[in-house]
Amino acid sequence: MTASPPNPTAAILVIGNEILSGRTQDINVQFIARRLGAIGVSLREVRVIPDVREVIVGTVCELRARVDHLFTTGGIGPTHDDITSACVAEAFGVPWEIHEPSFRLLEAHLAPGSFNAARQRMATLPRGAVPIPNSVSVAPGFTIGNVHVMAGVPRIMQAMFAALEPSLPRGRPTVSAAVQAPGLLEGAIAADLEAIQADFPMLDVGSYPFDRPDGRRGIALVAKGLDADAVAAARDRIAAMIRDHGIEPVQGEPAP
Amino acid sequence: MTASPPNPTAAILVIGNEILSGRTQDINVQFIARRLGAIGVSLREVRVIPDVREVIVGTVCELRARVDHLFTTGGIGPTHDDITSACVAEAFGVPWEIHEPSFRLLEAHLAPGSFNAARQRMATLPRGAVPIPNSVSVAPGFTIGNVHVMAGVPRIMQAMFAALEPSLPRGRPTVSAAVQAPGLLEGAIAADLEAIQADFPMLDVGSYPFDRPDGRRGIALVAKGLDADAVAAARDRIAAMIRDHGIEPVQGEPAP
Repeated sequence: MTASPPNPTAAILVIGNEILSGRTQDINVQFIARRLGAIGVSLREVRVIPDVREVIVGTVCELRARVDHLFTTGGIGPTHDDITSACVAEAFGVPWEIHEPSFRLLEAHLAPGSFNAARQRMATLPRGAVPIPNSVSVAPGFTIGNVHVMAGVPRIMQAMFAALEPSLPRGRPTVSAAVQAPGLLEGAIAADLEAIQADFPMLDVGSYPFDRPDGRRGIALVAKGLDADAVAAARDRIAAMIRDHGIEPVQGEPAP
Repeated sequence: MTASPPNPTAAILVIGNEILSGRTQDINVQFIARRLGAIGVSLREVRVIPDVREVIVGTVCELRARVDHLFTTGGIGPTHDDITSACVAEAFGVPWEIHEPSFRLLEAHLAPGSFNAARQRMATLPRGAVPIPNSVSVAPGFTIGNVHVMAGVPRIMQAMFAALEPSLPRGRPTVSAAVQAPGLLEGAIAADLEAIQADFPMLDVGSYPFDRPDGRRGIALVAKGLDADAVAAARDRIAAMIRDHGIEPVQGEPAP
């Protein structure tokens, strides 16, 4: 294994009262987290904050200083509570102004007479922002500096991420292997698992109990890291350890 | 409407590499958020961080200074990566030591000979912590100061929250009303909605597009706040506004 530069780092900022009230179950974090893992970008932190100007501006400034890439979701639609775009302009200290190409794109896309003031806000971007195309509803996200501003609606966010992905820097992708120990409890294998973790310090060895409504119970043991050979070796050690406890291991994650 | 003291505030700290890697879809935040809303505790922020000692200690100190109640999930099992409890002891500057009543409880619950060192860690708490009973698997969560430390496994976390809930301070519960505008787009009603928000400054008036796999599309318009009369009045204004756009409003949130 030769030395490689460290992977790029990232954070996700989820902006929206509807997540904090429990109205909406976020599913964007898992989507972005998996895609970042696959291209070797290391997700360090997620925050969920309300649609409050000073909180958005302050958190964007704080997080973007701390990671290589900050992804935001939510708050870029046409309504009065969609204030993310203006707040990001404020965080960067640049004007928030009509972005002509996006304006023309939306104008051409919408029915005559329906490109009202509210919709024109969706073509208003921080000066210097580069639009992120939106194949679902045309109104763009945007990148400014190391901040990528995306929609909160999952289908639109996913389209924006797909458009953005080719321009993101890549690191070494995370490789992981899971082995199930049906019927086993964490407390029974904790010491053995710690010994395996100690032998593979370059990996994260984790233990995740599962307990399905259909009665399947056990633990999923996961080895994860950048070194595929080490992951395979750790997986074999985990499987042997499960056998030592008198249980036949099952490869892979448990079905939902 | 008479003046009331402001509602207690809260934050949630989700601790676990498995959320940041995208392996696991968090569902604890929505559960806690809804329950807090129902008892009038205002959720201000959620953070997701990895199982890294200095990050956990620092974030616990930061968040607990900022809100009335901090709820953590994850990292209190028996395995080597379960470091939340020791980190919270460090954040409070107190020893992490065997908690005798919890030790005896676990000892009595487990099969003879199986109360090993790993499982004894689950009876090791910050000095001064008050256990949160766990009706599912006995190993407790705990409260120390304004920090409530709970499991990451949803079924266990929910049992702990139920045990904790009666001791939490209450505020005025959030009341909300939703009205659907089938087939309508946000951009068409944004200006009208902003006028309604302006007339009800004590409420949050939000707009949430929905787009179901079965083809149902539209927007859910939600008025939310502490004043039930104002919420009802805003709901009626929203319904009338939808009718003005030639659409028959539907009361309530859209079905999933």
